[in-house]
Amino acid sequence: MIQRLNKTPRMSQIVSYNGTVLLSGQVAKDASADVTGQTEQILQQIDELLAQAGCDKSDLLSANIWLSDIRQFPLMNAVWDSWVDPQNPPVRACVESRLARVELSVEIQVTAAARN
Amino acid sequence: MIQRLNKTPRMSQIVSYNGTVLLSGQVAKDASADVTGQTEQILQQIDELLAQAGCDKSDLLSANIWLSDIRQFPLMNAVWDSWVDPQNPPVRACVESRLARVELSVEIQVTAAARN
Amino acid sequence: MIQRLNKTPRMSQIVSYNGTVLLSGQVAKDASADVTGQTEQILQQIDELLAQAGCDKSDLLSANIWLSDIRQFPLMNAVWDSWVDPQNPPVRACVESRLARVELSVEIQVTAAARN
Repeated sequence: MIQRLNKTPRMSQIVSYNGTVLLSGQVAKDASADVTGQTEQILQQIDELLAQAGCDKSDLLSANIWLSDIRQFPLMNAVWDSWVDPQNPPVRACVESRLARVELSVEIQVTAAARN
Repeated sequence: MIQRLNKTPRMSQIVSYNGTVLLSGQVAKDASADVTGQTEQILQQIDELLAQAGCDKSDLLSANIWLSDIRQFPLMNAVWDSWVDPQNPPVRACVESRLARVELSVEIQVTAAARN
Repeated sequence: MIQRLNKTPRMSQIVSYNGTVLLSGQVAKDASADVTGQTEQILQQIDELLAQAGCDKSDLLSANIWLSDIRQFPLMNAVWDSWVDPQNPPVRACVESRLARVELSVEIQVTAAARN
């Protein structure tokens, strides 16, 4: 059975299916922040969405990260490294792409294992 | 068991495994169309591929969208919004990337839940 | 149960869960090579990681490919085509993105079916 949470007609923020939780790509709600602040906001949003799906960051399976300027890779990583569960890190890929609005510096999309 | 459909030696257009249907990134067959027309073509191709896999857009789990020019985000969204099942929207991420041929404006890759 | 292999505190190179093997995005260890050489290195790294997870390229489900210069699509494809199992090709998407370091030409992230 597919569970869809935090839905708009366009997309769900959370889809759970077959033991896996998928999240939409998250961007900062306050895009006036720099890449550090945007990454902090996004990771907090991911914490909240995973909690809503009944799991947490120790359940992460994968993370895809897009930076609008890849030179900010070390700044994003510093926030990531202080957030991720070092015993349970996901697979990851990070590349450069311009994002939906010019003020956005970073977008992160994750999947996680559901708990039953 | 893995099922692979619409295969070339390079890639499959459909892979079904473990209750999930994966599609290759779809681009417009007639790339002379604008982003609106290309998005329409792609979503029709996705309908056809999902039908071939025995499911439909109400089974979508995720969609990843690449635009060659992110300023065309609203134009793509207008077509998306009129196509997607508003009761059953997938998670989604949309970023800018140049695509395999310069005339391509949009590429969409989806996953869906299989029906048994 | 989630299995994480080749871990650093930042990420795992391999995550196995629920019958699926996920790999991190792979980049060439010797980035002085051209796109052909980098692709060859990456596909060999993927062979090694899949072997560590107990499967091989005939089990591939999906591949996402990023090229720092999309004009090198044919060069990457030539290496891909000589590597992939033509009877068992995955779904695929390939787009342009700048990568974590300027000398990187290509990054490939795959998923595969686990064997039990």
